[in-house]
Amino acid sequence: MQDAFVLTARYVVSMDDAGTVYSPGCVEIKQGMIASVGNLEDVSQSQERIDYGNAAIIPGLINSHTHAAMSLLRGVADDLPLDDWLANHIWPLEAKFLSPEFIRTGSRLAVLEMLKGGTTMFADMYFFEDEVAGAAKDAGIRVLIGEGLLAFPTASAKDPNQAFDHILEQAGKYRDDELVGVLVAAHSTYATSEDQLRRCAQLSAELNLPVQIHCAEGKKEVEECLQKYGKSQVAYLADLGLLDTRNTQISLVHMVWPQEGDWEFLKRDNVSVISCPQSNLKLGSGIPPLARYVDEDIRVVLGTDGAASNNNLDMWEELRLAAFLAKGSTLDPTKLPAQRALRMVTIDAARAWNLGDQLGSLEPGKKADIAVVDLDRPNTTPCYDIYSTLVYAAGSSNVKDVFVGGKRVVKNGNLSGGVLNEADVLAEAREWAEKIKKARIDG
Amino acid sequence: MQDAFVLTARYVVSMDDAGTVYSPGCVEIKQGMIASVGNLEDVSQSQERIDYGNAAIIPGLINSHTHAAMSLLRGVADDLPLDDWLANHIWPLEAKFLSPEFIRTGSRLAVLEMLKGGTTMFADMYFFEDEVAGAAKDAGIRVLIGEGLLAFPTASAKDPNQAFDHILEQAGKYRDDELVGVLVAAHSTYATSEDQLRRCAQLSAELNLPVQIHCAEGKKEVEECLQKYGKSQVAYLADLGLLDTRNTQISLVHMVWPQEGDWEFLKRDNVSVISCPQSNLKLGSGIPPLARYVDEDIRVVLGTDGAASNNNLDMWEELRLAAFLAKGSTLDPTKLPAQRALRMVTIDAARAWNLGDQLGSLEPGKKADIAVVDLDRPNTTPCYDIYSTLVYAAGSSNVKDVFVGGKRVVKNGNLSGGVLNEADVLAEAREWAEKIKKARIDG
Repeated sequence: MQDAFVLTARYVVSMDDAGTVYSPGCVEIKQGMIASVGNLEDVSQSQERIDYGNAAIIPGLINSHTHAAMSLLRGVADDLPLDDWLANHIWPLEAKFLSPEFIRTGSRLAVLEMLKGGTTMFADMYFFEDEVAGAAKDAGIRVLIGEGLLAFPTASAKDPNQAFDHILEQAGKYRDDELVGVLVAAHSTYATSEDQLRRCAQLSAELNLPVQIHCAEGKKEVEECLQKYGKSQVAYLADLGLLDTRNTQISLVHMVWPQEGDWEFLKRDNVSVISCPQSNLKLGSGIPPLARYVDEDIRVVLGTDGAASNNNLDMWEELRLAAFLAKGSTLDPTKLPAQRALRMVTIDAARAWNLGDQLGSLEPGKKADIAVVDLDRPNTTPCYDIYSTLVYAAGSSNVKDVFVGGKRVVKNGNLSGGVLNEADVLAEAREWAEKIKKARIDG
Repeated sequence: MQDAFVLTARYVVSMDDAGTVYSPGCVEIKQGMIASVGNLEDVSQSQERIDYGNAAIIPGLINSHTHAAMSLLRGVADDLPLDDWLANHIWPLEAKFLSPEFIRTGSRLAVLEMLKGGTTMFADMYFFEDEVAGAAKDAGIRVLIGEGLLAFPTASAKDPNQAFDHILEQAGKYRDDELVGVLVAAHSTYATSEDQLRRCAQLSAELNLPVQIHCAEGKKEVEECLQKYGKSQVAYLADLGLLDTRNTQISLVHMVWPQEGDWEFLKRDNVSVISCPQSNLKLGSGIPPLARYVDEDIRVVLGTDGAASNNNLDMWEELRLAAFLAKGSTLDPTKLPAQRALRMVTIDAARAWNLGDQLGSLEPGKKADIAVVDLDRPNTTPCYDIYSTLVYAAGSSNVKDVFVGGKRVVKNGNLSGGVLNEADVLAEAREWAEKIKKARIDG
């Protein structure tokens, strides 16, 4: 493919602030960037051109929260009480198996699944994040790596504060990387220390790095924080300087149980909520108050969480469920309409990561991160309203082609152009699973 | 393919009462019936054999409630208040467009989508149901047709009671049909008359036909019934003889808002609840109390509802959402575990339709209705527990082959063997959509 080319389709859904849909439309790409977007008749006939016909060209989806390598633990233990699941299954397995090799295979498996479903960027929080970056680069997907900060030793940081060294090193290493960025990934108010959290705030301000932290996921942790500190987790984080507008951006992951005093903090422009509705339901954490977040004009975006608690990395399912829960839990079908919902995985997500000027919509000057959604399928026929079709009817399997930075990384539903081979990655993942199964049987 | 053959795969998930999984396993099919099910080593080597490798062979899924032809109205009006949606969009469009031709194309579109996703039987409620039967037979899917009974004239019954004539005629016509059965489809307590409902009870008993009726979908209809009759809709139906055990079987569709006195009725063996969780959320009807239905040992099965209120016919999404809602709404991740959930779309659904001896599980003597789920994909790798993989990770796009009555009707994800051509059906559906769009613009 040449350096300059044009994509055309029945719909180009720009997700610009005016909500412009060009139908039929075209996107002109030059050197990895979007050069122009418009109606089909505006295309110059001389350019190389891919015509997708009855399809929608949309911004690539952004998965704002995952633990990618946990894909290797997909379904390893389900339908269990949360404490049992963590203490007797996930943590012991992580203690035994986490290594750079585990993270490499798990992340490869995850990026395969994400890319094929139209996700072009994800924000990660786990360990050995250099390996996550490597897997992402091999597949050609964008990533924000987040080396997990906990108050106790982890697989990648024998001394709890060693994770800061990793972050500093990564921030240097990936400063000018085209695909990889770095975030400050504090685990939570209960598993990350006060000192660590203060240092996160400093680091964010000094190095211009966004922060993400799990917050108010379960009722129990909220109550424990109220008891211990006499304030909500959000207020506690604010007191430590983490919600300060001098920091770049902070994303509070889950927020199933906001407390009354939290709302004023959540409205700040540098604060976002990352909701993971499938994970919240499946783990019995609760039903996130998505309609209220939208009504209060809080920036709320979506993530899959890790595949151990979801159990897939399908952003279409999250998107649909978010809209459905907003309606079903308020008995109001007008809540979180389709177009508004689609912002949660595109332009609003880009803004949550301080990347609103580069990603999240199809506008001239932005990077050409694009998913092409095939509408010529039973589940997307007919199409009366493209937002409605995308949010309520389409799915990962409708994704035909995917471009990241103008490079076609998925072609006709298969990986293309990168160095990863799907069959090899699946075989590697199955080998890990055999080891893990054996360890569980052996005790 | 010959009259006798064997399917083998890494997993055969029988859904028998003991929950037997054969791994690796095989299913022997003879003249459309299951002749034997067992471990791989039990296969006789001389038979014709299809080896699916890393896949799961499961009973075909049963969609217990839909209005198939409404697929032509998929996404025609979304995110609206329920009254506005019905009175100003759906009903006027139905009044203008419903015809045998509309039903034919709409049903063809629906059966295409359902079959490709692994659904091998659906229970319908709409109009001109002879056309639904025709579409089903053309594609090779099983159907229970339900001519809608309403207290006012409909497209297919100028006199409200004419629908009974249709039902009687259909009951005769399809008595010995291999694929088509007939049900008594009363719309609801508020849109079907008391006399009609009494006649439904008689008809069900006399002709051995199951009944289905929308019930307790929205809060408002529940309150109106309490006001008008001084009792719940379920109690009202019981008084009219519809929950009498002399009737074959009644299925109450939706039941988002059961009243306290309803539970004793729901526990009867001839009564089932059909939940349509995506529709209930999307229309703002509410969150169905699925965990309580399961805890109280009430037979609860799943349907997609019509594509105008869902907006697809994907049983995997319903299955997953049902399990997630049971957990999320009770804050208890142990509710509705994966294996129990899978019963809702297989053996329990067959029992809800009085077909438990013929369908719903892979056991000798049952009809060979089978879906083959490809596990060799990123979203289903690795697999530690097959139920978990099927319910929490897999989707329609994992469905590779589908058999109905031993006949392969989907092969490698494409229709096979029937007389329907996918591209033709999609083109016909788009033509209808153009007419409908034009009518809306014109007024």
